[in-house]
Order: sequence, then structure tokens, then C-alpha cells
Amino acid sequence: MTALTSDKADAGAALDFPIILSVDAMGGDAGPAVVVSGCSTSAKKNRDIGFILHGPEDELRRLVDRRKHLRGRCIIRDARDVVTMDDKPSHVVRNGKGTSMWSAVESVRAGEATVAVSCGNTGALMAVSMIRLRKLPGVNRPAIAVLWPSRNPQGFNVMLDVGADVRADATDLLRFALMGASYARNGMDLRRPRIGLLNVGTEEHKGRPELKEAFELIRDHADAAEFDFVGFVEGGDLPGDVADVIVTDGFTGNVAIKTGEGTATLIGELLREAFRFTPLSRLASVLAFTSMRRLKKRIDPRRVNGGVFLGLNGTVVKSHGGADSTGIAAAIKLAAQLAELGFNDKLAARIARAASAAEESKE
Amino acid sequence: MTALTSDKADAGAALDFPIILSVDAMGGDAGPAVVVSGCSTSAKKNRDIGFILHGPEDELRRLVDRRKHLRGRCIIRDARDVVTMDDKPSHVVRNGKGTSMWSAVESVRAGEATVAVSCGNTGALMAVSMIRLRKLPGVNRPAIAVLWPSRNPQGFNVMLDVGADVRADATDLLRFALMGASYARNGMDLRRPRIGLLNVGTEEHKGRPELKEAFELIRDHADAAEFDFVGFVEGGDLPGDVADVIVTDGFTGNVAIKTGEGTATLIGELLREAFRFTPLSRLASVLAFTSMRRLKKRIDPRRVNGGVFLGLNGTVVKSHGGADSTGIAAAIKLAAQLAELGFNDKLAARIARAASAAEESKE
Repeated sequence: MTALTSDKADAGAALDFPIILSVDAMGGDAGPAVVVSGCSTSAKKNRDIGFILHGPEDELRRLVDRRKHLRGRCIIRDARDVVTMDDKPSHVVRNGKGTSMWSAVESVRAGEATVAVSCGNTGALMAVSMIRLRKLPGVNRPAIAVLWPSRNPQGFNVMLDVGADVRADATDLLRFALMGASYARNGMDLRRPRIGLLNVGTEEHKGRPELKEAFELIRDHADAAEFDFVGFVEGGDLPGDVADVIVTDGFTGNVAIKTGEGTATLIGELLREAFRFTPLSRLASVLAFTSMRRLKKRIDPRRVNGGVFLGLNGTVVKSHGGADSTGIAAAIKLAAQLAELGFNDKLAARIARAASAAEESKE
Repeated sequence: MTALTSDKADAGAALDFPIILSVDAMGGDAGPAVVVSGCSTSAKKNRDIGFILHGPEDELRRLVDRRKHLRGRCIIRDARDVVTMDDKPSHVVRNGKGTSMWSAVESVRAGEATVAVSCGNTGALMAVSMIRLRKLPGVNRPAIAVLWPSRNPQGFNVMLDVGADVRADATDLLRFALMGASYARNGMDLRRPRIGLLNVGTEEHKGRPELKEAFELIRDHADAAEFDFVGFVEGGDLPGDVADVIVTDGFTGNVAIKTGEGTATLIGELLREAFRFTPLSRLASVLAFTSMRRLKKRIDPRRVNGGVFLGLNGTVVKSHGGADSTGIAAAIKLAAQLAELGFNDKLAARIARAASAAEESKE
């Protein structure tokens, strides 16, 4: 009865680590072995993390027992059901109580863990997170923020929303700016992030009416919220260095990141083809191996794996469904950093201050 | 008096060529020399093209006289004013009669030329084109279509609208589908183009309400308009091979192409950096030179230079403001192809048929 014994050893007391993360072991394309492997990599690198793992207990127990870095650092929560990529969010909200995803979010709601990590279905994860964690006071629409390779010294820009909701009015866009600034401050260590509002041109008269309204709202909040507003930016500025945080609605943001990812992937494929074309180019590819690997690392989507759900009572990190253990470890690293900094409390305080400032200015 | 003599030689009679293009020689970042050079390259390759060039006569005359391939193939229309990149479209519509851009569009309106080409300010060019050429019957919003490097056998996909207007309702999106199908048929020689509607997911229940409505409208017109409707597509399908034509509103389309271009440019820069990094990688870059050049050519934005304004009584090709003579030549080649095929007449007929079919189905 190895399972039972180790169960007791691990779960008898609460985990005593500075950072507790709740990890949905199921729902990724590659299965739980890859998730447990990613946890093990993270555990080796950061001794402060303890894990609550959610999924079928016997299977997870076997996987965890093989990893020495996870010894004494995991609690396993048995959850038999799995949310699939095809499940509709509304279906999961009604029938998903037995799933590993639900259980993972529940640990954050109950205060056992600070941040939840899941590779599962984004729509379902957002729906379950909304239902269980609820929105922060002052937030109408939560947002998903991602990191995007850029020319900035920090190597990445933040973009939000990339798909929590297909709509956003001017007030939502202001809150995205506040949340994005908090995220850049905590996740990328920028004291005074530069915020840009995505539009089809940089002139003030351009774009949709809600964008002109949002322009003024964000500009008026910049000083109090300690960010710089650089005004309208264009799609080309997403990988650029004029802003650290790009604010847009979830429809536009989703199309933009997928177009960027798709273009990068196509170039990568064509590059590999080009190098295979002649004996000379094959030789070149051998000589260029180290340089190419450095480049690949610089723009590797796995290194920035993790969309963060902002605007809820608790932080949820969405890892890519197709993530391998390197990708999972990157998502866990991000989750640990946000947990360590008390990110969500700071974000909540920031939103509350902005809301009360807005109330005062109305009086 | 070389200028006067050649003036008479060229302009005494109308140009007798199968294809007459109207070219705005001004407004590009690099000035008229580059535009005339691009015309000369095109003239050399295609003996069927005659040009009406618009700009300051003396300057253009000097430039044209230096090019033997342009001898007897150009009429020059004197236009002293130039639309700058900073001019507001509304200002140009009110005060732009003396500009080379206005004059170039006017030649199409008057029936002297089939297609106009300009590197100038996009917003102003669209505004002048709308005012002078007017919309085709049945078209509410014109659209700008671009070619995008893709995995498809033809090497490119069509996307529209990329910025004629920031809005589009379901009926506009249907017309974009009809116009995009015509463009793919004539510009890319696809008998039965596959049309995709850009959304944040491929499931039918996803996205904004106008997209669900457009989905049904486009599906219902597919057979009569001889295209295949592949349903919703995502940003990642823009460079992909599931659709030949991607339909979206001008706001989303504009952000998407600029994000894709920006990402491709960043990767190109990082690639060059990577190759400079070590002596070994510098050697590799020499060996890989031919392969890299082949790749560069494959995704070179200059080769697909030319946004096409669709939905007007006449075709206008917008070349990139920063285009060099290779880029100009590509835009002229596209313009010549569309002129030769009688593209705009076919497009007009297609729209008219769809409109009358819609009327009939209402009866």
C-alpha cells in the first residue's frame, strides 16, 4: 500500500512552504506525466514551492513517487473527471465539480494555495475561475494577460486582454491598463511601466469611439496609478519598444497573438527548409547551431508560457494546452513569482484606489 | 528643349497600349525617382503597359527621359501639390484637387486608365478614391485587401479589410467575402477560393454577434458565388493553408497585419544578430547566404507590395509608403494583372448578382 503510506506522509499535515501552488495535472495535450515532470523541474530550482496536485490520485501518486525533488512537497487531491478541450464552458460550470480543473481553482478559493496553474481548456478555466473566485470589487471584466517577445530590455511586453471576453468598453480598457501596469511591475520588475492603447494609427482622432474615450480615461489615471501613458500604439508596437504593456479588447488581442504566433511558426518552418536545401546550407546550419539555439531560446514561446487571469480574487495561470515540461516549468515559475510578491493583493488594492479616486472625482 | 519635344512625342496622341495604368509619382518616402524606376522595371518586363504619370512635369520629364524602356510609353500629367503622410483625409478631400494623388485617381474616373497606383497616405487615398470613383452599387463599405505569405500552394492568402474602415456589420462582411473571392480568382488564379471568417475560435457559438450572423450569410452565398466557405478561422490561419481568403473588419485586420509584420521584422533582426555573434556563426551566415536569400525572397514584403481597394468604380492599388523600386514594380505588376483581367467589371457583376439574389430571396 505504497500509495496510502506516501499519501499520509505528504498530506497528513498542511504543506509548510512559503509558496503553495495549486496545479491541475490533467487537461494538457501531453497528459499528467509532463505536468509532474514540470513540477519536479520547478521544485529543484526553487526550494520555497509546495504543490497541491489535482487529478486521479493513484496515477499522480505513481508519477510523484518517481521524482525525488517532489518528495514531501506535494499534496494530491483526487479528482476523477477531466475537462476536455471540446467541453463548452457553460457545461463545465454546471457539471464540472468533479474535475481536476475545478478542484485546482477551489484550492485557491479556500486559501490553501495562492496561485492555480492549469493547461486545460481556456474558456472553461476562465468560467470556473469566475464562478469560484469571483471578480475583484471594481472589475467588470477580467482579462487574460500574456508576455510577448519584444525589443524592450526586459525582452517581453505584456498584452491584455487576449481572450477572456470579446468585448471591452472604455472603463474595461482603463481597468486593463491598471491591471497590466500591476502585472508589469510585479512580473517584470518595472517600476513605472509604459502603457499603450492598441489602435489602427497613433493619431488621436483615429479608431473606434470607445478607444477615444479610453484614451482620456487612461491618461487621467496615469499619475495616480504610477504608470506612463504613451497613447495609441499599433500592431507593429507589440514586439516593439515604445510600450511595456499593450491594452486592447479580447477579440483583437486574441487575433493579434495568434497571427503573431502563426507568422513566427511559418518563418521557423521556412528557415528549417532553407537550411536543408543544399549541402552548403546544411553545413551552415551545423555551424550556426549555437546561434540559432540562442535565437530560438530568445523567442521560444515555451519560455513565456502562461496567460495570467487578472481581476479575480486569486491568480490563475493558464499554461498552453500543448506545453511540454519546459513550458509547464515556465508557467510554474511565473506562478511562484506572482505568489511570492503578493501580486493579487497589490492588484486588488490598486483597483480599489482607482475606483475610489474615480468616485471622488465625480463628487 | 528636349522636354517639350518628348512631351509632344509622348502625349500628342493617347497611349496605344492594351493596359494603361495611372501612377501617382509622388507621396512615397523615397520620392519620384524610385517610382519612375519601378515603372521602368515593369515596362521592360511587360510590353503591354502604358503609363500616365502624375506629378511635377519638369521633374518627371527629366526622370522619364533617362529610362529607355519608358520611351513613348508615358504621358505626364502636371500636378504640383503633394499629399503628405500627415495630411488628414478630410483636408485632402477639400483641398487636394491640385495633388498628384487626386490627378492619378481622376485618370481612372475619366476612363483613361484602368487601375491607379499610389504610395501615398492610405487614408487620403481611400477618401479621394471614394469621392471620385464612388462605391459600386450594392457596396456599403469598400475594403482594402492585402496578400499575406502563407503555407498555401499559391504562397499567399488574401486578407480584407485591413483598414478602409474600423467597422463592418454582417452584410459588409458578406460583401468582403464576395470581393475577396473575386480578387483571389483574378489575382491568384484560384477557380474556387476557400473563404474563412476571422474569429477567436472555430466553434460556431464563439465570437461577436455580427460574426454569427455573417457566418450564415456567407455560407448561404457560397454556392451561387462559386467559393467554398470553411467557416470561422483564427489568427494562426492567416499564414496557414485552411483558407485562401480571410474576411474581417478593418480594425482587426489592420492590427493583425501590423502585428504579423512587426513579429517577422523582429525575428529578422534577431536572426541577423545571432549570425553576427561568433566567428563560427559569421562563417555560417556566409555559407547560408543563398538559402537565406531564398527565404527572404519567399517572405519579402516588397514582393507582395500592394493593398487593393475593392468595392469602387475602378481599382486602386496602394503601394507601401516606404517601397523601393522593387516594391513599386510589384505593385505595378499586380495593377497590370488586375487591369488585364478586367477585374473590376467582374467584381461589379458578382456584387450585382449577389445583391439581386438577396432581393429575390426576400420576395
